[in-house]
Amino acid sequence: MLRTHTCGELRISHVGQTVTLCGWVSKVRDKGGMLWVDLRDRYGITQLMAEEGKTAPEVLEQLRKLGREFVLSASGAVVERYAKNDKMATGDIEIRLEAVSLLNPAKLPPFLIDDETDGGDDLRMQYRYLDLRRNPVRAKLELRHRMAQAVRRYLDAQGFLEVETPVLIKSTPEGARDFVVPSRLHAGEFYALPQSPQTFKQLLMVGGFDRYFQIVKCFRDEDLRADRQPEFTQIDCEMAFVEREDILSTFEGMVRSLFTEVKGLDIGEIIRISYDDAMRLYGNDKPDIRFGMQLAHLKGYGNELTSGANFVVFDSAAAVIGVPVKGAAEYTRKQLDELTEWVKRPQIGMKGMVWVRVEADGSFKSSVDKFYGPEVLAAWAKQAALKAGDLLLIVAGDAALTLKAASELRLELGNRMGLRKADEYKALWVLDFPLLEWDADANRWLAMHHPFTAPRPEDLHKLATDPGSIKANAYDMVLNGNEIGGGSIRIHDRATQAKMFEVLGFTPAEAEEKFGFLLNAFEFGAPPHGGIAFGFDRLCALFGGSESIRDFIAFPKNNAGRDVMIDAPGPIDAIQWKELHLQPKP
Amino acid sequence: MLRTHTCGELRISHVGQTVTLCGWVSKVRDKGGMLWVDLRDRYGITQLMAEEGKTAPEVLEQLRKLGREFVLSASGAVVERYAKNDKMATGDIEIRLEAVSLLNPAKLPPFLIDDETDGGDDLRMQYRYLDLRRNPVRAKLELRHRMAQAVRRYLDAQGFLEVETPVLIKSTPEGARDFVVPSRLHAGEFYALPQSPQTFKQLLMVGGFDRYFQIVKCFRDEDLRADRQPEFTQIDCEMAFVEREDILSTFEGMVRSLFTEVKGLDIGEIIRISYDDAMRLYGNDKPDIRFGMQLAHLKGYGNELTSGANFVVFDSAAAVIGVPVKGAAEYTRKQLDELTEWVKRPQIGMKGMVWVRVEADGSFKSSVDKFYGPEVLAAWAKQAALKAGDLLLIVAGDAALTLKAASELRLELGNRMGLRKADEYKALWVLDFPLLEWDADANRWLAMHHPFTAPRPEDLHKLATDPGSIKANAYDMVLNGNEIGGGSIRIHDRATQAKMFEVLGFTPAEAEEKFGFLLNAFEFGAPPHGGIAFGFDRLCALFGGSESIRDFIAFPKNNAGRDVMIDAPGPIDAIQWKELHLQPKP
Repeated sequence: MLRTHTCGELRISHVGQTVTLCGWVSKVRDKGGMLWVDLRDRYGITQLMAEEGKTAPEVLEQLRKLGREFVLSASGAVVERYAKNDKMATGDIEIRLEAVSLLNPAKLPPFLIDDETDGGDDLRMQYRYLDLRRNPVRAKLELRHRMAQAVRRYLDAQGFLEVETPVLIKSTPEGARDFVVPSRLHAGEFYALPQSPQTFKQLLMVGGFDRYFQIVKCFRDEDLRADRQPEFTQIDCEMAFVEREDILSTFEGMVRSLFTEVKGLDIGEIIRISYDDAMRLYGNDKPDIRFGMQLAHLKGYGNELTSGANFVVFDSAAAVIGVPVKGAAEYTRKQLDELTEWVKRPQIGMKGMVWVRVEADGSFKSSVDKFYGPEVLAAWAKQAALKAGDLLLIVAGDAALTLKAASELRLELGNRMGLRKADEYKALWVLDFPLLEWDADANRWLAMHHPFTAPRPEDLHKLATDPGSIKANAYDMVLNGNEIGGGSIRIHDRATQAKMFEVLGFTPAEAEEKFGFLLNAFEFGAPPHGGIAFGFDRLCALFGGSESIRDFIAFPKNNAGRDVMIDAPGPIDAIQWKELHLQPKP
Repeated sequence: MLRTHTCGELRISHVGQTVTLCGWVSKVRDKGGMLWVDLRDRYGITQLMAEEGKTAPEVLEQLRKLGREFVLSASGAVVERYAKNDKMATGDIEIRLEAVSLLNPAKLPPFLIDDETDGGDDLRMQYRYLDLRRNPVRAKLELRHRMAQAVRRYLDAQGFLEVETPVLIKSTPEGARDFVVPSRLHAGEFYALPQSPQTFKQLLMVGGFDRYFQIVKCFRDEDLRADRQPEFTQIDCEMAFVEREDILSTFEGMVRSLFTEVKGLDIGEIIRISYDDAMRLYGNDKPDIRFGMQLAHLKGYGNELTSGANFVVFDSAAAVIGVPVKGAAEYTRKQLDELTEWVKRPQIGMKGMVWVRVEADGSFKSSVDKFYGPEVLAAWAKQAALKAGDLLLIVAGDAALTLKAASELRLELGNRMGLRKADEYKALWVLDFPLLEWDADANRWLAMHHPFTAPRPEDLHKLATDPGSIKANAYDMVLNGNEIGGGSIRIHDRATQAKMFEVLGFTPAEAEEKFGFLLNAFEFGAPPHGGIAFGFDRLCALFGGSESIRDFIAFPKNNAGRDVMIDAPGPIDAIQWKELHLQPKP
């Protein structure tokens, strides 16, 4: 090793030892008689010191030529500092320099290599290798490393086998678009990159592997929204001879052990609610339950507490939904107007907002007092479980749009009231999703999860007669309002799978061509099985207290799917075009 | 869980318990009054038993309809067997069946699901999910799982961070051919799949990550030779602030710990030899040192022990090389003729073979007695360290061809004498490879390892003047005659790297276009660094005592690069062609 110690490990107990450190020059302070250098590596920062008259002149001369980010090897004695720095792990000591060797000079970096940087996103991405030197970025990737090891340790201990599934597979676009890879050996043919190892993990179950996992790259060629990446990583898992409960408890265990091992905290109870209840109570299938504010349906979901008052806005609405806000009765006119404007933004799309507040004496005041008397308001307050001092914010209109608006309003209020803390964690399972959703454009059913998801056993008989009413034997794990994992019990018999493909509008020939290998496999003794996949990038980001995944990926792509550091994608040469039997289409 | 226990865990201590097992019907024996079913899962086989008059008639009826590979859930009491089977872990007990539930029937498999199968390679690959049910195949993938966990545990404990590098990168063909991925968003542009994460791991070092590893898929679009796969897996590692010795000792430690943890054996000393010595002593840069038979150079490498006898064959040869075979003096004429035919095969390409044997009394007998007298033969015997009872087999001709033939002959003799045991392991480091090799066709230098390999420091000055004589600061780890890992100290300054590209025939513009990001990164404070990559598929195969990697990969491709199970690659549809801005070239 070019060093005897790292820049993070020297303590007062090392005083008197002669050491050699290597690292990057973080800062040089030259006070004339004394000169200090902060030397940084992955493990920390150590202060180097030289003194006119005591340090050899040639060492001082070398030090005076140093620039930021120069790479050094520095040797000397560990000495106790006069002025200790209790904010640094190495703050009790410094190195009295005896020799310095310049390992590599450095041009001035285009942005500050510091916890707070002056570099914009584009610059940081272009010089990602410099951005990676910054503590917050490195800490995020160190967290990711720890998460990956902890996940594998847990699953290994539970008897799961890590199996690598192929990356060069077959294109079976259903849902998202595949990335494809032209074959040189087979002209006109293509491999596809997997959107997930779904069919392979099911084949492993048919192959008797029983418990499988993999932390694996997956690929989707989608138009990129903010914070989506064309390549992303899943914790992919499958189990045989199980029922839903087994999967839920196994992966509750995984998430619980991750929180304990990586963050040293107890995640507490992981509650379970149905998709229908999640939509009714939160307007959302990935509810953030760090805070309450469960929606109050004044009209809709079997309630009708708004009629007979000739209030046209509510009378003409399919849904009237209140968001109860504890202790917010003192909201000012200005605050209420601001929230009204907020719900009227095009992204939310409401025409206005009604409010009701419960005064300290239990009386009501509302923006619709001229339509509704105290008895009706009391009924609303009861429906919304309001107490004195609470506020109810009400939106109305089309059922789906209003539910979504109420959900967004609830989350916005959570933000404004500081109830969505990045360092507080609440996880839950959402169960019993609809199996199918109707695609009005394509005039066909789509699989809400994917075509391999089993219906709930009690709903199976409706596959031919009433597919829209079927609930899937599917489950999502939601953490702080983010879907972090989802899965299902799978279909494991050929007849049901073939029927499912038929419901989804595949002809038997199409089903055979795309998924014949799976249908065939089901005829050779497929066990009951199910599984789950967690979005690893997102999971790491949430553990890191962030909503953005980009800094939890070492070399991410930008929103146009480009790697701006290496400048990919790029052209290929004429020989490559020829060997791949391709030409550009003008 | 659909089961209370697995098919591998019940013992005599479980007798009296009522259990439920799930698995596949391996065998049914119906003796009329008694009926047994062998039920198999990943963990083992358990015998189920039913008895006319005691077992419910409907259970017996169900059992009589079972076929091989049907999937069952079976419940009953654990009872002690009358006739115990000490070859099975569960052989002391059986299950007296009370209830049976058929979870899935199975068509008759196209080959026997047994340790020895009647299925040929093609059939096994087409029905890989059935092949995976066979114990030997599953055991190989379980070994791979254990190896992967052990590698990560070791490297994690050594402070290495697991970092995922991108799969969609830029095409920089140098050496092997890239697989490419057409971009939909950037017409006419392509991503490439990585042949290795080489440049990214070096950028991680520039980014201060210090110790990196990844078990990662890599891709090469090569014409496939036997036992090569277009996608393969590497244990990829890099370290900063190190010298060669640090890398050798760290990864000796890894291999040593793998042998201890996974195979429970001590690999012993891992010797080091130079590339030049390996070529001289074994004719091979990946020598199998499980056995001796070091080559004896009778002519060449500074020796000339064959001249002056007017033996045209040797006089006209550039190299005369002997393979000493201990205790083989009693080889019969027939055996010697057979070996002569063997070296004359076109793959070996020798014109003949000369032999010398040392009789029990120390006298010599050779096939060239009429040319060489006892004194010369004694000199050869000394050169080859022959003792009484030993045999020397000699080939001669062109230097390179003869060296290769001598190496092949040595390995063949090792095989014939049973000296290359699959369960004996000897590893070594081969050091100081040539930096460059001359490509006569292209009239240019090629990097023997890759263009980022550093010359040995003492050879650096020859880069401009005498590149062919430079040794690289590179190393391979060889296990039982297979290269299992290779790496080098890297170039870490822009000037040397630019010079290296120049020697390799890149114009400055080409170097900038392909590797500008790396050259730039080197200007911002790149630390000295080096690394290594192990071929994980091969390493697993060797640990499994096999020379073939295919069964250590869950879903391998055939020699034409096809996955015959899912039938990939395959066509894509017209919309995909259009979206990718491509058309086929006729």
